[in-house]
Amino acid sequence: VTRPVIALLTDYGAGSEHVGALHAVVARACPAADRIDLAHDIPPGDVRRGAVVLARLAPLLPPGAIVVAVVDPGVGGERRGLAIGLHAGGALVGPDNGLLAPAAGRLGADRAWALPTPPGVPATFHGRDVFAPAAAALALGAAPLGTPIDPAGIVRPHLPAPRVAAGRLEATVLGADRFGNVELLAGPEDLAAAGIGIGDAVRVDPAGAGPVHAATVARTFSDVPSGALLVHVDSSGAVAVALNGGDAAARLGAATGAPLAITTAGGARPAI
Amino acid sequence: VTRPVIALLTDYGAGSEHVGALHAVVARACPAADRIDLAHDIPPGDVRRGAVVLARLAPLLPPGAIVVAVVDPGVGGERRGLAIGLHAGGALVGPDNGLLAPAAGRLGADRAWALPTPPGVPATFHGRDVFAPAAAALALGAAPLGTPIDPAGIVRPHLPAPRVAAGRLEATVLGADRFGNVELLAGPEDLAAAGIGIGDAVRVDPAGAGPVHAATVARTFSDVPSGALLVHVDSSGAVAVALNGGDAAARLGAATGAPLAITTAGGARPAI
Amino acid sequence: VTRPVIALLTDYGAGSEHVGALHAVVARACPAADRIDLAHDIPPGDVRRGAVVLARLAPLLPPGAIVVAVVDPGVGGERRGLAIGLHAGGALVGPDNGLLAPAAGRLGADRAWALPTPPGVPATFHGRDVFAPAAAALALGAAPLGTPIDPAGIVRPHLPAPRVAAGRLEATVLGADRFGNVELLAGPEDLAAAGIGIGDAVRVDPAGAGPVHAATVARTFSDVPSGALLVHVDSSGAVAVALNGGDAAARLGAATGAPLAITTAGGARPAI
Repeated sequence: VTRPVIALLTDYGAGSEHVGALHAVVARACPAADRIDLAHDIPPGDVRRGAVVLARLAPLLPPGAIVVAVVDPGVGGERRGLAIGLHAGGALVGPDNGLLAPAAGRLGADRAWALPTPPGVPATFHGRDVFAPAAAALALGAAPLGTPIDPAGIVRPHLPAPRVAAGRLEATVLGADRFGNVELLAGPEDLAAAGIGIGDAVRVDPAGAGPVHAATVARTFSDVPSGALLVHVDSSGAVAVALNGGDAAARLGAATGAPLAITTAGGARPAI
Repeated sequence: VTRPVIALLTDYGAGSEHVGALHAVVARACPAADRIDLAHDIPPGDVRRGAVVLARLAPLLPPGAIVVAVVDPGVGGERRGLAIGLHAGGALVGPDNGLLAPAAGRLGADRAWALPTPPGVPATFHGRDVFAPAAAALALGAAPLGTPIDPAGIVRPHLPAPRVAAGRLEATVLGADRFGNVELLAGPEDLAAAGIGIGDAVRVDPAGAGPVHAATVARTFSDVPSGALLVHVDSSGAVAVALNGGDAAARLGAATGAPLAITTAGGARPAI
Repeated sequence: VTRPVIALLTDYGAGSEHVGALHAVVARACPAADRIDLAHDIPPGDVRRGAVVLARLAPLLPPGAIVVAVVDPGVGGERRGLAIGLHAGGALVGPDNGLLAPAAGRLGADRAWALPTPPGVPATFHGRDVFAPAAAALALGAAPLGTPIDPAGIVRPHLPAPRVAAGRLEATVLGADRFGNVELLAGPEDLAAAGIGIGDAVRVDPAGAGPVHAATVARTFSDVPSGALLVHVDSSGAVAVALNGGDAAARLGAATGAPLAITTAGGARPAI
C-alpha cells in the first residue's frame, strides 16, 4: 500500500507560518499523506518563476502525487481556482493565473475543474482555505470538486521566446538562485541555433543594468578559473550565467524579467 | 491506526541545524511520528509573535497533536519548562515565558507540568535537550513528566489592547510577513468599534517612524489600485496594512512593537 | 517494522527548488522513507561548516539513517562521489571534499565506495542525479554502489587547531548562526588549557576586523547583563561568543575563517 503524496510549492517563504498552515490543514484532512516541500522561496508574486520551477519539479514526484501550488498575487480577485487531473494520475491544484500551465503541459492534463470558493472564506489565503483542502480531498479519492472546464482554456504564463541570431542569443532573465546563478528563458537548442558552443569566449550584456562582462561557454563551474564567469546549460536544462566560486547575479546586476544578451563576436559595448 | 503528530514552532530559522536537531531527536525517540514544521521564522526572541502565531496554527493541527514551541531568550535562566495537556488531547511543550499561553487558552488547558532539566544538559538548547524529548515521550504515552502545576499559573505574554475612539484605531504592530503585510494586535471588532468600515478612506500613522500615508479600507489586495495601501482584516483575523503588489512594511517603516494609528478624519499629520 | 530514514544536509537554501528536487527524487525511489531536513542553510560552498554541522547532527539520527550531504563547490570536476557505510548501520553519501570525514570519524566508517557518475548526467546537480538516488538505493538494500575504496583515504577538511597560551585562546571563526552567536573551532578543553574559566573578565579580539571588546566567560546568556558579550561553551560543545539579547557577529564584525583571540590579561589593544 502506498501512501498518498501531497507536494507544496509556494512563495510564502521557507519556515513561514503560511507554509505551516498548509501542512497542518493537509495533515488534519489526510493524516496518511506524505507531504513534500517542493519550493517555498519563489520570489513573492513571481508567477512565471513559480510556473517554470513547478514544471521542472513535478515530473520528479512519485506518480499520482498531488501538488498544491500557490503564487497568487490576485487572490481574492477574479481569477479562478483550478484542479487539473494528470494523465499518469495525480493532480495540480492552485490559481488559474499561469502557474500551473507549464507543468500541466509537460505532464499531460486530462481534465480540469474550477474550484468554488466556500462562502465565508477570508479573501487572502486560498492556499489554506481552498487549495490545500481540495488537494486533501483528491488524495482521499473525492469526486470532482467543482465545475468541469476545458483544460485547454487555462491561463498560460508569459514566457518570452529568446531572440537568436548568428553569434548572439538574447533571452529574458528568469531569476537567480541562492548561489547567484542567473537563469535565462532559453535552452541548449537556442545556444546551438546561435552557433555558440563549449569553449567559446563570449560577452554577457545585462542590457543597461551594468557593464558588459567577458565569459566562457563551459560545461561546469570548475572548467573556468575561480572568479571567472561562465555560460552553461544548468542542471534544469536552462542557459545560465554563473561565476565559479562567486555570485554572478551580484556581479552582473541582472534583474529578473530583463533581457540579457550573450554574443560571441565583438559586441556594441566593450567587456570588462 | 493513526501515527502520532509532533509539530515544531521555533525562532531557529528555516533550514538551520537547530531545526534539524529537533527533527533528528524526535525521529530517533519516536520513529512513527509525523513531524510538522509549523514555523521557524519567528523573529529571534520575539515571544509575543511566536505566541500569536502558535495560537493560530495549533487549532489547525490534527487532534492529539503535540507541539514543541521554542522562542526562548531566557533559556538557561530561571524560567520553567512546561508541558500543557489539552482538552481535546495533545499537548504544548516549551518554555514558560508567555509563548504557550494564548494557544493553551484557545484550545483549553487541562493539566500542566513543570519539566525538569536533566543534570548535565547544556544551558542553551533546551529545544533539543528538554522539549523535544518530552514531546516524544508524551507521543509514546509516557506518564506525566514533571511536577504538576496549575495551568492557570502559566506566564502570559504582554499583548497590549488597542485604543479605540470614534474614527480612530491605535494598535501595536505585531510584525510583518515576507510580503510586507503589517499585522496589528487588533481584530475586526476593533475596527467596527471605531466606526471604520470597508471603503473608508483612512490615514495610517506609524507614530513617528515616518510620514502619514493614505489608505483605503478594503476586503483584499485587488480592491485597491496596484501600488496603493489598504487596511484589511487578514486571513488570521487581524487588522493589517498591506500594499497591493508591494511591501507595506518597507513603505511605512513601521517597527514591531510600536504603535500604529488608523484614522478616518483629518489626522494631526498630513498624509502623503 | 521501521521505515528507512534518509536525512538531507545541503547549502541549497531552505525552501529552494534544489531541496525540493532531492525530496522528490527520494520519495519517488523510496516511498516508505522518512525524510529529515538536517540543515540547508550552510553558507554556499562552506565545506568546513557543513562538515562540522554534519558531525554534530548525524549522531542524533535514528540508527541506520542514511545521510545525503551536499556542499559541493567542485561539482562536475575531479572530486569523487562517496558512500560511506557506518559501524552502527546507515551511511553517508556525498562529495569526497572533506564534508563527510568528521561525521564518518565520529560514527565509525566500515566501508566506502566511490560512486560512478552515470553518463548523460548534468555536471552541476549531483545531489539530485547521483547522491539522492544512491541513498535511496542503499535504503532499499542495494548492493554496494561503486568501486570499493579505503575509508582511510577520504578527504579531510582543514580545521585549524586553536593556539593556546596562558590566559589566551586564539581560534578560527567557524561562522555565526541566526542569533549572531559566533562559533569558534575550539572546545572547553582549550579554554581550560588557557586557564580561562567561568566568571573571568576577558577581551575578545577579532584580529583586525574591528575593535577589541570586553566580555565575561559565563554559562549562559542570562548570566550577563542584557547587551553584554559573553564567552561560553555552546550547546554543540564549541567555544562561542554571544551577546545577551543581541547579535554578537554584528557587533564583533568577525568573519568566517578569520582568527579570533580571547585573552584574560591586558591585551595589546584596549577593549571598548
